[in-house]
Amino acid sequence: MNHQHASMITDFYEFTMANGYYNYGYRDRIVYFDVFFRKVPDGGGFAIAAGLEQFVEYINNLRFDNDDIEYLKSKKCFSDEFLAYLANFHFTGDIWAVPEGTPIFPGEPILTVRAPAIEAQLIETFTLLTLNHQSLIATKANRVVRASGGRVVLEFGSRRAQGADAAVIGARAAYIGGCAGTACTLTDELYGVPAGGTMAHSWIQMFDSEYEAFRTYCETYPNSTTLLVDTYNTLKSGVPNAIRAFKDVLVPRGITNFAIRLDSGDIAYLSKKARAMLDEAGLECCKITASNGLDEYLIRDLLMQDAKIDTFGVGERMITASSAPIFGCVYKLAAIEENGEIIPKIKISENVGKITNPHFKKVYRLFDNDSGMALADLICVHDEVIDTSKPLTIFDPLATWKTKTLENFTARELLVPVFKNGQQVYTPPKLTDVQAYCKKEVATLWDEVKRFENPHDYYVDLSQKLWDIKKDLLDHAGRQS
Amino acid sequence: MNHQHASMITDFYEFTMANGYYNYGYRDRIVYFDVFFRKVPDGGGFAIAAGLEQFVEYINNLRFDNDDIEYLKSKKCFSDEFLAYLANFHFTGDIWAVPEGTPIFPGEPILTVRAPAIEAQLIETFTLLTLNHQSLIATKANRVVRASGGRVVLEFGSRRAQGADAAVIGARAAYIGGCAGTACTLTDELYGVPAGGTMAHSWIQMFDSEYEAFRTYCETYPNSTTLLVDTYNTLKSGVPNAIRAFKDVLVPRGITNFAIRLDSGDIAYLSKKARAMLDEAGLECCKITASNGLDEYLIRDLLMQDAKIDTFGVGERMITASSAPIFGCVYKLAAIEENGEIIPKIKISENVGKITNPHFKKVYRLFDNDSGMALADLICVHDEVIDTSKPLTIFDPLATWKTKTLENFTARELLVPVFKNGQQVYTPPKLTDVQAYCKKEVATLWDEVKRFENPHDYYVDLSQKLWDIKKDLLDHAGRQS
Repeated sequence: MNHQHASMITDFYEFTMANGYYNYGYRDRIVYFDVFFRKVPDGGGFAIAAGLEQFVEYINNLRFDNDDIEYLKSKKCFSDEFLAYLANFHFTGDIWAVPEGTPIFPGEPILTVRAPAIEAQLIETFTLLTLNHQSLIATKANRVVRASGGRVVLEFGSRRAQGADAAVIGARAAYIGGCAGTACTLTDELYGVPAGGTMAHSWIQMFDSEYEAFRTYCETYPNSTTLLVDTYNTLKSGVPNAIRAFKDVLVPRGITNFAIRLDSGDIAYLSKKARAMLDEAGLECCKITASNGLDEYLIRDLLMQDAKIDTFGVGERMITASSAPIFGCVYKLAAIEENGEIIPKIKISENVGKITNPHFKKVYRLFDNDSGMALADLICVHDEVIDTSKPLTIFDPLATWKTKTLENFTARELLVPVFKNGQQVYTPPKLTDVQAYCKKEVATLWDEVKRFENPHDYYVDLSQKLWDIKKDLLDHAGRQS
Repeated sequence: MNHQHASMITDFYEFTMANGYYNYGYRDRIVYFDVFFRKVPDGGGFAIAAGLEQFVEYINNLRFDNDDIEYLKSKKCFSDEFLAYLANFHFTGDIWAVPEGTPIFPGEPILTVRAPAIEAQLIETFTLLTLNHQSLIATKANRVVRASGGRVVLEFGSRRAQGADAAVIGARAAYIGGCAGTACTLTDELYGVPAGGTMAHSWIQMFDSEYEAFRTYCETYPNSTTLLVDTYNTLKSGVPNAIRAFKDVLVPRGITNFAIRLDSGDIAYLSKKARAMLDEAGLECCKITASNGLDEYLIRDLLMQDAKIDTFGVGERMITASSAPIFGCVYKLAAIEENGEIIPKIKISENVGKITNPHFKKVYRLFDNDSGMALADLICVHDEVIDTSKPLTIFDPLATWKTKTLENFTARELLVPVFKNGQQVYTPPKLTDVQAYCKKEVATLWDEVKRFENPHDYYVDLSQKLWDIKKDLLDHAGRQS
C-alpha cells in the first residue's frame, strides 16, 4: 500500500465528523485520544505491541492529493472550506506510544494522541488498523515461539495471509514476536527479516525421479539444502532418497549443514522414524523441519510426544492468528482542552469493563529491584510522578479493597514521545533490536502470566488521583446526556 | 501495496526453484498448474471466487527492478545468468480462470496456468494470496448477506482488518459477496464501492450535550443522518434526544430519510423498544441500523427474535472471516509438456482427498433447462466437449457406483481465457456487474446447497476420460519415486 493511499484508508465517518467539527468551530479544539485493547487474544496473559514504525510512516506521509479532494467533493456533503483545509492538511499534534515489542495489557493506553479535533479524528482508522494487525501477529508469533521451547520457528504463511500487507507486514510482526525468519521475500528486501526456503512438491514432480530432484538440488545449493521428503512416500521413498543424495553430493564435500522437511502425515511418528533412519545412516548432523498446519498447541503437543524436530515452519495459523484473528484496540476520547485546561472525558457503558479511563494519562511499569520481574502497571494522570523511595500501595480499580504494597521497586514509563507538534521525535529501533527487546521484556513476566491456560491477571491499576477523577465523572455521568 | 512490490511477494523457495530450473535447463519446459481449494470455510456448501481483477493487475505488472535484483544477488545463491534473466522477466504464458462472483466448489480448478516452468513457479505465492483472501471475504460476506434476508448489509471492519490491503480489498470482496457499501473511504475512491458513515461516540462526547451533538449533525447533514444513540443510555437518553433532534431539524423540512444506530447492549430488545418509541413519536420513517460484533449467526438470531433492524453494519467478524479465517487454495502441478505432448502429473497422498486431479483440464457447470438450477460440475480433459443433446451419466469419483443421468441440460464452461501468450485477453467486468452476476449465480444453487448446517454436497465429478487417466497414474504411482 503506498503512503498516499494510506491517508484515505479512513472510515467515512471520520470525514463527516471532521467536516462537522470544522464547520462548527471545533477545528482547533485540542483533544486527547487513547488507543487501548480490552482482551488478550486466545485467552493469553499479555499481548505484544507492534506496528509503531508503520504508524510513524503513516503520520509523516499524511496528506490528501487532488484525486482525494475531487473524490470527496463528488460525495456532495463536505463544505468547500473544509475541502480547502484538507488540501493543506498535515498532522501538527503530539503522540506518545509504547515501543514495539513491549508486552501490553488490557485497559492501558498504548498510544495517546493530543491534537486538534479534526486531526485526531481522521487518523483513527489507520492507527487502529496498523496497531491491531501487527500486535495480533506479534502476539500470536510470541506464543508459537514460546511453545517451541527454543527451537527455530519460521514464518511460512504468505499464501494464506489476508492480503498483501498481511503477508509482508505480518511476517515483520512475526519476527518481532520471535520468529527467526520468513518465507516472504519482500519482507526480507524491505525489512531485513531473513527470508529462506528451498522447494515445493512441484520441484520434485518436475524431475523424472525423486532422487534426481534431490541430487540436483544438493548440487545447486550445497550450502543450504532442505529436501522435502513427502511427495510420494515419506519413509519408503523420501527419506531414503534424501539420505542417498546427501551422501552422494554433500557428505563427500564435508558439508554437514542440511535438513529434510516433513509436510504431511503423522509428524510425531514420521519425525522419530526419520531421525532414526538418518542417524543409522550416520547423518546425525541432518536437521528435521516440520510444517503443515502448525500452531502453538500442535507444537506443544508434538514436543510432548518427543517428536524429533529442530525447526518449525508455521504458516496459515500464525499469519492469520486463526484461533483468534481479531485484535481489539479501540480509540477513545479521553479529554479535551478548554482555555488551556484539560477536561477529562469518559465513555459510560452498562458493561463495567467498557467504561473508559478518562484524562491525559501516563503508564508506569513497576519492576521488583531484586528479581527484575514486572510487578504491575500503574495508570496515572499525566502530571503524576512516582516516588520509588517510598512504599507504594496499589489497588484493584474494580475491587478497591484488594491492595498490594510495593517496596524496593523501579518505575519505568511505558509510553515514549513519538511526535511533538507534528514533528517526529522518536526513531524506531532496528528490527533485530526490537526482537531482542521483546524477548528481554517478556522475560520480566512471571511464568504464571505467560502460561496458555488460565494465566494470572497481571495488575493494571489506576493511581488514587486518576481513580478519584474517574469516580467523580461516573457519579456525575447522568448530567452529561 | 504498489505493483512493483507485489512481484517480490513471493515465497523465497519460488526463487530457489526457479534458479534451479534455469540452471538445469528446465527454463522453457511448459508446465500446467491448477489453483483449487479443498474445503469450504464455515462448513458451507460453496464459496465465491474473487480476486481475479487484482491477479490480472499483478500479472501485467510482473517485473523485477534493480533493487530487487541487487537484493537477490546479496543472497549469494543465484546464478548471474538467472539474475540477468529475471531483470528482463515478464509473463508469457496462458491463464484461464473462473470469473469473480462465481460460486465454486472444492476440488475443481478455479485458475489454470500454462507457462514456462519458471514463470509458472514464480507467480504461485501472490496468485494464491490474492485469490485466497478475496474469495474468503466474498464467501463470508455472501453468508452474512443471505442471513440478513434482504436487509441492507454494510461493511464496517477496516480498523480490525489484517492490514491495509485486507481493509481496502477486503471491502471490495465483501461488495462482490453482496454488501451494499463500506465504511472504507479508499475502497470507494479506488473501486466505487459506496462509502458511508456518520458518527462515532467521540462526536457526541465533543459536545456539551447529546442533544446538541445530534442537532448539530442533523443541521450539517440533513439528507443523510444516522444518529448513534448509545453513548450514555440508549432508551433513556439516546433515542429521546434523537427523536427531539429529528423533530426539531429534519421533520419541519419534510425530510424522512434518517436513522438511528444501535452499537451496544441487547440489540434485539433495544431495537424493539426503539422502534416503538420512534413509531409513537410519529417517526415510522426512521430506520434502525445495528452494529457491534455481528456475523451471519447473530443476524439470523436477531431476526428470529423479530428484532426491528433495517440495516446491519458488520465489522471485524466479516472483514477477518473470524469464524474460519483461512481460505485454502493450493497451486499444484497438473501436467508438463514434452515434445509438444501433454504429460499429466499427479501428487499422491495417503489422504485420498489430497490426491490431485492430473492433466490440463476444463470444468463444465451443468444446468437443468427447466428450472435453470445448477445440477453438477464436471471436470474434463481440456479437449473434451459435452454433447448436451444426449443423456449424460456422471458418477462420484470417490464412489464410482453412485451415478446420475442428466437429460435436458445445458453445459457452461466455468473457466474463461484471461491471458494468451502473456497478453491479457479478458476485461474484468465492472464491480456492480460482478455483484449482480454473483447474486444471479448463487440463485441457481438449490437451498439444500446454501443452508448453513450440513449443506448438501454439490456434485463435482470427473469425466470418464479424466477418471481413467487419474486411475492409470495412481496405479503406476509407485514407479515415480
